[in-house]
Amino acid sequence: MARIVMKFGGTSMAGTERIRRVANIVRKQQAAGHQVAVVVSAMAGETDRLVNFCREANPLYDPAEYDVVVASGEQVTSGLLALTLQAMGCKARSWLGWQVPIHTAEAHAKARIMEIDSDALCEAMAGGEIAVIPGFQGLSAEGRVTTLGRGGSDTSAVAVAAAIGADRCDIYTDVDGVYTTDPRIVARARKLKYVTYEEMLELASVGAKVLQTRSVSLAMKEGVRVQVLSSFIDEDAPPADDLPGTMIVSDEEMEGSQMESQLVTGIAHDKNEARVVLTRVPDRPGAVSHIFSPLAEAAINVDMIIQNVGRDKGETDVTFTVPQADLARAQALLEDKREAIGFNRIITDSKVAKISVVGVGMRSHAGVAATMFRALADRGINVQAISTSEIKISVLIDEDETELAVRVLHTAYGLDADEPAE
Amino acid sequence: MARIVMKFGGTSMAGTERIRRVANIVRKQQAAGHQVAVVVSAMAGETDRLVNFCREANPLYDPAEYDVVVASGEQVTSGLLALTLQAMGCKARSWLGWQVPIHTAEAHAKARIMEIDSDALCEAMAGGEIAVIPGFQGLSAEGRVTTLGRGGSDTSAVAVAAAIGADRCDIYTDVDGVYTTDPRIVARARKLKYVTYEEMLELASVGAKVLQTRSVSLAMKEGVRVQVLSSFIDEDAPPADDLPGTMIVSDEEMEGSQMESQLVTGIAHDKNEARVVLTRVPDRPGAVSHIFSPLAEAAINVDMIIQNVGRDKGETDVTFTVPQADLARAQALLEDKREAIGFNRIITDSKVAKISVVGVGMRSHAGVAATMFRALADRGINVQAISTSEIKISVLIDEDETELAVRVLHTAYGLDADEPAE
Repeated sequence: MARIVMKFGGTSMAGTERIRRVANIVRKQQAAGHQVAVVVSAMAGETDRLVNFCREANPLYDPAEYDVVVASGEQVTSGLLALTLQAMGCKARSWLGWQVPIHTAEAHAKARIMEIDSDALCEAMAGGEIAVIPGFQGLSAEGRVTTLGRGGSDTSAVAVAAAIGADRCDIYTDVDGVYTTDPRIVARARKLKYVTYEEMLELASVGAKVLQTRSVSLAMKEGVRVQVLSSFIDEDAPPADDLPGTMIVSDEEMEGSQMESQLVTGIAHDKNEARVVLTRVPDRPGAVSHIFSPLAEAAINVDMIIQNVGRDKGETDVTFTVPQADLARAQALLEDKREAIGFNRIITDSKVAKISVVGVGMRSHAGVAATMFRALADRGINVQAISTSEIKISVLIDEDETELAVRVLHTAYGLDADEPAE
Repeated sequence: MARIVMKFGGTSMAGTERIRRVANIVRKQQAAGHQVAVVVSAMAGETDRLVNFCREANPLYDPAEYDVVVASGEQVTSGLLALTLQAMGCKARSWLGWQVPIHTAEAHAKARIMEIDSDALCEAMAGGEIAVIPGFQGLSAEGRVTTLGRGGSDTSAVAVAAAIGADRCDIYTDVDGVYTTDPRIVARARKLKYVTYEEMLELASVGAKVLQTRSVSLAMKEGVRVQVLSSFIDEDAPPADDLPGTMIVSDEEMEGSQMESQLVTGIAHDKNEARVVLTRVPDRPGAVSHIFSPLAEAAINVDMIIQNVGRDKGETDVTFTVPQADLARAQALLEDKREAIGFNRIITDSKVAKISVVGVGMRSHAGVAATMFRALADRGINVQAISTSEIKISVLIDEDETELAVRVLHTAYGLDADEPAE
């Protein structure tokens, strides 16, 4: 017998018919002898509807009241799932954020979970009752409703799993696991059976949006084993003995599993970056801080940075990337500081893509970067910038070459499956 | 300075534009120097939507989970009204049922309010903050969400008014007060400035559905002065010095006010009754209890009862009325008990109407009934049954004669206004 947390997103909860499918999946886990807690999102589209109401009511909305309004979406689906489970003959009840309670910090609309009182929850689960918990919501020290920020239900699920000491936290999504790369680009992309927290964080941060980044960080910190799997499985099939999705685990478990000894786990791409070049910046100590301090203060996330030697002595070109959504703001800020920085021109380019190769195996193996550069050069793909972490190498290229680069690298690192995916 | 509770129904809260109108009305009461609490319903149609979800999820739904789902409608509107008031520069916050808290009995989906902790609420209001409270919801002793039953928001408003010792509970509806009769039938119907709790209860119970009956009973018990008024007033007009709606008050205040010395306050009609006649029932002690005990056990509300002397000695015809919605069930029950009761035939008639004349003045004045029977007889309207209370006389007539009877009686008791209503 295991203790399992299952989490279902908005697409899975959109309407009573889909909730019945979810209830069926949940019921089978309980029938297999497990203690089950379920964390649910609001029906797809509902949170947007509620957020729009708030915006219409008050464009500068008070986040405390915003939380009261938007938390209602998950309240509805948690009650409906409990009702549906009861209709199938299961014992079930909903536990709202303030009832568990899930204590969070005060910061409304982006609260952090501080502590979860799990005693009552565990007692109910031990008594054979399925606990249904609305994701995304909590309780502040002042006794008010808080929410965790968009996509927070993944984090709720991992936090509940940590609090009740769950053996596993299963995140049901509209994909059936984590792939070596985007299967829409590479038909021979392979589903990974295991991936480490660090790899998942790097993959998530570069655009493989299967899980919310915060939830992966929390799982790593708390040592929660997370499985990503599809909610669109055959609901009539018995629960599989082996894990059907991708398990996200620690380095240690990964090594112990000996499942995969690949150098590179996956190839991610991200088209949401923009490149900024400041030309002829004075090449003196402190000059660069004049560029990046104002961006940091404006909470604009600068990613890749390269400093080229300029044509004229004592001057240099500075290249970096920012999220496309922040490009206009970044440009305006830098124009404001033109005198202090002392640059000549700003050149921007949104038609770029960041391609990343991720894998814990890199730590101990040289030659990963060399393989990357050679493979790209062989196809004439120009690298505009490079950044690296311990387990990731990212390059900035022309956006038009995204798909080509991903395919080339997927093959170069031997990731292609024998058969194309369906 | 007064302390006021204002309550707005679903039509007034249907969408952010209407909520802005409500906020404007609320804001003006505060600007006039009053401490204000507002009780709100869910947006029109929302509770039906949520109830339907519950029915789809589980036709035999657990009322505890039903409450979790349906209470969300008022949670949304309370947050949105607080946001809208803030946008107008008012201090405001929402107080959910569990936050106040509004303690109720356990009975889910039809909970009764037991006690309201008003300390925090009063403190916030004294600090100039408008308290926005979702109607219809409360907290059980087990710490779960309860709801009061459909239309319960009126009751929430009166209960909050009692708890905080409000000077007045203003119920904003889609009519601008309580009329001497239905203005759609009698153009010269007059809006009443005052009506007593007892009169309002009699008017409500016979089909003048302005307020939920429970809320009037509670107001009477707690001595809360309730005003019924329209939410579709000119929002740009300054608050009137005199009360624009109808005040519902105690007998004592009514006498003190000397506003109305009318014998009869209003004429109500109700087309939702059905007449049942059992012929040739044995005329012996206890026979009638065989008829009415099973109906009472089935929670079928029997209203008017007459026992006619039958043609044959030792037999009698028994006539009574039940709600039309319960007629088929009542008929089936009585057929089952045919032997025990010993009747000959069941004759039913749904084409009947109950016309009621209501007024506290009746207590001390004879002749009210005589006026009624004479006025109806003069127009050839046949009375099929009669029932009376201390302040009400009801007659059952042919449904086709409803409008005629109401007009005749309205004139007979001198209730016609000088000018037709707009």
